[in-house]
Amino acid sequence: MNYEVIATNNDTQARAGLITTDHGQIETPIFMPVGTVGAVKAVHMSELRNDIKAQIILGNTYHLYLRPGMDVIEHAGGLHKFNGWEKPILTDSGGFQVFSLAANRKLKDEGVYFRSHIDGSKHLFTPEKVVDIQRTIGSDIMMALDECPPGQSEYDYARKSLRLTQSWLKRGWKHFNETEPHYAHRQAFFPIVQGCTFKDLRQDSAKFVADLGAEGNAIGGLAVGEPTEVMYDMIEVVNEILPHNKPRYLMGVGTPANILEAIDRGVDMMDCVMPTRNGRNGMLFTQHGTMNMRNKKWAYDFSPIQEDGASVVDTAYSKAYLRHLFIAQEILAMQIASIHNLAFYLWLVREARKHIIAGDFKSWKTTMVENVTRRL
Amino acid sequence: MNYEVIATNNDTQARAGLITTDHGQIETPIFMPVGTVGAVKAVHMSELRNDIKAQIILGNTYHLYLRPGMDVIEHAGGLHKFNGWEKPILTDSGGFQVFSLAANRKLKDEGVYFRSHIDGSKHLFTPEKVVDIQRTIGSDIMMALDECPPGQSEYDYARKSLRLTQSWLKRGWKHFNETEPHYAHRQAFFPIVQGCTFKDLRQDSAKFVADLGAEGNAIGGLAVGEPTEVMYDMIEVVNEILPHNKPRYLMGVGTPANILEAIDRGVDMMDCVMPTRNGRNGMLFTQHGTMNMRNKKWAYDFSPIQEDGASVVDTAYSKAYLRHLFIAQEILAMQIASIHNLAFYLWLVREARKHIIAGDFKSWKTTMVENVTRRL
Ligand SMILES: [Zn+2]
Ligand SMILES: [Zn+2]
Repeated sequence: MNYEVIATNNDTQARAGLITTDHGQIETPIFMPVGTVGAVKAVHMSELRNDIKAQIILGNTYHLYLRPGMDVIEHAGGLHKFNGWEKPILTDSGGFQVFSLAANRKLKDEGVYFRSHIDGSKHLFTPEKVVDIQRTIGSDIMMALDECPPGQSEYDYARKSLRLTQSWLKRGWKHFNETEPHYAHRQAFFPIVQGCTFKDLRQDSAKFVADLGAEGNAIGGLAVGEPTEVMYDMIEVVNEILPHNKPRYLMGVGTPANILEAIDRGVDMMDCVMPTRNGRNGMLFTQHGTMNMRNKKWAYDFSPIQEDGASVVDTAYSKAYLRHLFIAQEILAMQIASIHNLAFYLWLVREARKHIIAGDFKSWKTTMVENVTRRL
Repeated sequence: MNYEVIATNNDTQARAGLITTDHGQIETPIFMPVGTVGAVKAVHMSELRNDIKAQIILGNTYHLYLRPGMDVIEHAGGLHKFNGWEKPILTDSGGFQVFSLAANRKLKDEGVYFRSHIDGSKHLFTPEKVVDIQRTIGSDIMMALDECPPGQSEYDYARKSLRLTQSWLKRGWKHFNETEPHYAHRQAFFPIVQGCTFKDLRQDSAKFVADLGAEGNAIGGLAVGEPTEVMYDMIEVVNEILPHNKPRYLMGVGTPANILEAIDRGVDMMDCVMPTRNGRNGMLFTQHGTMNMRNKKWAYDFSPIQEDGASVVDTAYSKAYLRHLFIAQEILAMQIASIHNLAFYLWLVREARKHIIAGDFKSWKTTMVENVTRRL
């Protein structure tokens, strides 16, 4: 993996960059649609490529490990071959899902024991094992196993948790360097900064992570219930320490405004289920504000979903028709909303990149944050 | 509406034909995907057009009447404008859904009283009212209101039911001829042959229907539980009487083998929820047989869904991947299966038409019926 800074601005930390992987290039800042089990919910691969213009998608290690399981993925020749997505894939370590979905968690020094939320079967994730799993998946970017403490953790718990995450990181990094890709493409390994909302822990974690010299670095444990301003502060604290010549990935964030503020603070990569999950519930994000498509106000609005939208669905269907599909609980409603929202998120980061390169990101962002937080 | 017979064969009753409506032409025999609330479940309009190659779709009057309601459809300028499907649309009369979905049905001479299955609200469908509703919908082909007696009805009940259907038909036909389209395109009105599985009632009904001189005629009340051979016999009995110079529409049928046997007996138009409903449950129809995609046997089969399939999804995804999506209950699984099955049904009727024109339909059909009834 290679990362190159293309442009920076004096009045923000925002950067336009270019990541090169064996599965192609990624223009940063970038938003990565979440493909939980190897598929972005309600979206065809061809739509991801042609309409949404995704450059990289996420896969969830926890989900893929349980279903279809590593034996199927290995026989397929890796996730790219299995799901037909030939551009870059990033996988998380599975830690977040173990801590949010799995049952009977037992946290030990060696790793985390848990039961599958699907069939109750027992499993153990160690820092080494999640590297092996991601080797089998064949993701272009793999993530380190970390503990994800609750959003409102006390300082003592946060510090203890960070020590465990750091000892796991050392082991995961060692195993990454001792193992080889299973397929004919290279894989990068990103460590994750934790430390909850405590500035000194975040600084400690960021230094520890930076010292590894990985090809990219991630910021985890944010957008888990803390006030938005605290999240922005933590990003600032961390990004002062994380190296400038490596991409920075803010995990699980967020709203369009969050995305823009994170970019402003030097973040290059983001992912979130919000565009697809909220979309399936009838919420559309647009550059003019959000729309709840179940609202009665759209019942007789036969204008296109979004006249100046980034996706073909925006002009192919009307607001009234989409509302009708949501009220009638049609699957097509979820398909349309998911495509629209993802296409908008990808449009948003493309525009951000253009404005960073043009040098007027700051003023563009200020206006855009106002627009996207409006309710239509 | 205009109908022209293009080709017939000596050894079957099959016909290749061409229907012309103000929304374009329909090559018959044709299969019509069911768009219950104005959308074919899990399928984009662009996929219907470009990938499935649908030439006409169905709308359900009962569903559209309840949601979004006639006021919305009227303000949209009709269903074509509302859902963006600019090719022909056929609507049923709503009778079938009233008799299968609605609650508190009361059958009277004037019409059928019922309560909505959605909100319990009270409604009355009369032969005149369903014409008015379909005028508002603006379908290219409207259907008469009929009573749909249970599949295993006694002779006396079937005869009484047929008398009611015939009196309703007279009223509906009269109202159709006294009213005008609401929009700038013409609408045809198809009467429906009933009579359960009783030959003399079917003959009586077919004569009554034929005497109206409508632009096309339908056969209803079949594929409701009777043995397949009985259904084929009834089609034969009816098609001896229905005029040759008008299209014949067999309602709600059926499996690929049913489709081919109906075409053999002189049927020109068919519709069924089977390709989409069974598809959503993991069943794929192919020209080589059916596949249950939940089956373990596909877990390691990384070959395309169908190498020689009629749809782009057939080579875009593998059997193992589609099985995985079904097991993981991903919406994308339902999307892929729906597109595949509909594209196959449309391929099947296109091939049937080619072979009717080529003159070898009979032998092609015999082989194809064997193939499609295989289980893979
Ligand atoms: Zn390994
Ligand atoms: Zn009227």
